Amino acid sequence: MPTKLGAHTVRLDSMPSILSFAAVASKKEGQGPLGGKFDILNDDTSFGQQSWEKAESQMQKLCVGKALEKANLSPEAIDFMFAGDLLNQCIGSTYGLRDFSIPFFGLFGACSTMSESLTLASMFVDSGLANRCIAVTSSHFCSAERQFRFPLEYGGQRPPTAQWTVTGSGSVVVGKNVKPPYVKAVCVGTIEDLGIKDSNNMGAAMAPAAAKTIQTFFEDTCTNADNYDLIVTGDLGEVGSNLMEQLLAREGISLGTKHNDCGLIIYDRENQQDVNAGGSGCGCSASVLCADILPKIQNGELNDVLFIATGALMSPTSVQQGESIPGIAHLVYLSSQSVRKGVL
Amino acid sequence: MPTKLGAHTVRLDSMPSILSFAAVASKKEGQGPLGGKFDILNDDTSFGQQSWEKAESQMQKLCVGKALEKANLSPEAIDFMFAGDLLNQCIGSTYGLRDFSIPFFGLFGACSTMSESLTLASMFVDSGLANRCIAVTSSHFCSAERQFRFPLEYGGQRPPTAQWTVTGSGSVVVGKNVKPPYVKAVCVGTIEDLGIKDSNNMGAAMAPAAAKTIQTFFEDTCTNADNYDLIVTGDLGEVGSNLMEQLLAREGISLGTKHNDCGLIIYDRENQQDVNAGGSGCGCSASVLCADILPKIQNGELNDVLFIATGALMSPTSVQQGESIPGIAHLVYLSSQSVRKGVL
Repeated sequence: MPTKLGAHTVRLDSMPSILSFAAVASKKEGQGPLGGKFDILNDDTSFGQQSWEKAESQMQKLCVGKALEKANLSPEAIDFMFAGDLLNQCIGSTYGLRDFSIPFFGLFGACSTMSESLTLASMFVDSGLANRCIAVTSSHFCSAERQFRFPLEYGGQRPPTAQWTVTGSGSVVVGKNVKPPYVKAVCVGTIEDLGIKDSNNMGAAMAPAAAKTIQTFFEDTCTNADNYDLIVTGDLGEVGSNLMEQLLAREGISLGTKHNDCGLIIYDRENQQDVNAGGSGCGCSASVLCADILPKIQNGELNDVLFIATGALMSPTSVQQGESIPGIAHLVYLSSQSVRKGVL
Repeated sequence: MPTKLGAHTVRLDSMPSILSFAAVASKKEGQGPLGGKFDILNDDTSFGQQSWEKAESQMQKLCVGKALEKANLSPEAIDFMFAGDLLNQCIGSTYGLRDFSIPFFGLFGACSTMSESLTLASMFVDSGLANRCIAVTSSHFCSAERQFRFPLEYGGQRPPTAQWTVTGSGSVVVGKNVKPPYVKAVCVGTIEDLGIKDSNNMGAAMAPAAAKTIQTFFEDTCTNADNYDLIVTGDLGEVGSNLMEQLLAREGISLGTKHNDCGLIIYDRENQQDVNAGGSGCGCSASVLCADILPKIQNGELNDVLFIATGALMSPTSVQQGESIPGIAHLVYLSSQSVRKGVL
């Protein structure tokens, strides 16, 4: 049963388990530091399809299929599916997942989708609304670039604050408490907007939402960074990460050495991978979670992790109309242990 | 507490209440049969804003404000908000609702969003995840037309199967069982695709999903059309409604005189309102629900209603790439009474 803690945090008293997970990625991600860790790595970014959008759908299909296979579950064993992506009308999800015939909740949380879908899946299991749920999302550099920025052939210049959309997908099956990783709590984000208008600086636009959610969670649970091994944001990149730390510092909160960002984990920015401020996209946090973080919780390398995917809730139209860019961030507390410590 | 019935239906044992609701619409809707019933009716479709997209955001803001006002609740009294719309990246919701600071779950269910959001809100209250939630969505003829079809100035010809996007919004506050209307059960839809490719015939594309969800609900609950006073679909229009009835007839299911469609209720197609096959858009089912159906349940004119909003999960890009149009439909069982009858 869920217990509300403070303003926006819900403790999941049954501590649902992550039964399985899968990560899919492509060539550039395979050349990065996590190269050997993806379940499916396709050097051809088309994934055998005739368009980038269909390739993205194919990634979600492969990713869900792999997570089900790893859990030895059929689609009929899943009560509800939570999915979304960056593409207009979320076609990465709706076309990619239509063959599974699993009761479907379509989401839009931009790059926060992995934590939004995982939050809902975990709440559903904890509250008895479901025995098993699946959460999935994706992004594709080519489909995102031409939808949000310029045709690929144009070769537009990218400022240093720009980020590189990850071609990848991640999916997670959540079920009753049986084995680690466990989901111990979630903190649902509010829409935050400090007035950033530069769509080439998404990290800055999302930083206030990440800072707000982390602050709220710490207040709601009377914990701080010392209580966790890793506090990992979704895709703030270098610029956004620095801004988030500045915003938290104003509130007297330091994450010390505990903070990292999926956008800084997935590519090797120092050496050969030209990704400016880091990786981004729904697939960034999703694939890093499923390729790197969840395995480390499973094998005990990490014990207590706060996963906070962040989304920029704009569209090209809203930016052209001079609007600022609102952000949102949802937090999921993942643990290798299902014993209660303090309020959590 | 929720109880799973059959494949996809969840009975909400506590029977959450709809505490309040509000409907917003504009000039054309005001000239239709429901003209006197909207809470806010603005003859200027710009709603005082400088773009159609900003007008749509404004509608959601007004609509949520009105529902809170009618329930005498502040935004802080709402645990979670579920919202989405048709616009790219759901900007109708994210910009319209950012000032409320309510923990926010962004959804994408196309025109099924009113039943998707109401389903989640009701499940959250029934399972103890929340005390109060708000569900809201919208559509705007002008923002939808230029995003999905042609610039308004082009004046494109519309075939007889085309529908008219409603300029409207609806919002519902769900809370603990205190007064009618009650939410007795929900049935979560699956993505259905029978291969329709004509984006000027959305009713046909969504009909299979509506038929599937109604059939599943009847099977899961051992009920039939005789058990309900009204079975109202979202925005199938005339073409889609006929197709849905044909698909149900193949399964031996007749809705008799119980079926109506929000797209056929909101405009007067016979006389002066030139809307081809009927109304459509997230705002169609949302505003009809809140202006017409919920008041009739409240005053006892209707006792048992199945509300099934339907969504077409395509995008202009997927249609241009030759893809068919998947649909989805979620069902919400609304009742004037909180006593159990049979399995429900």
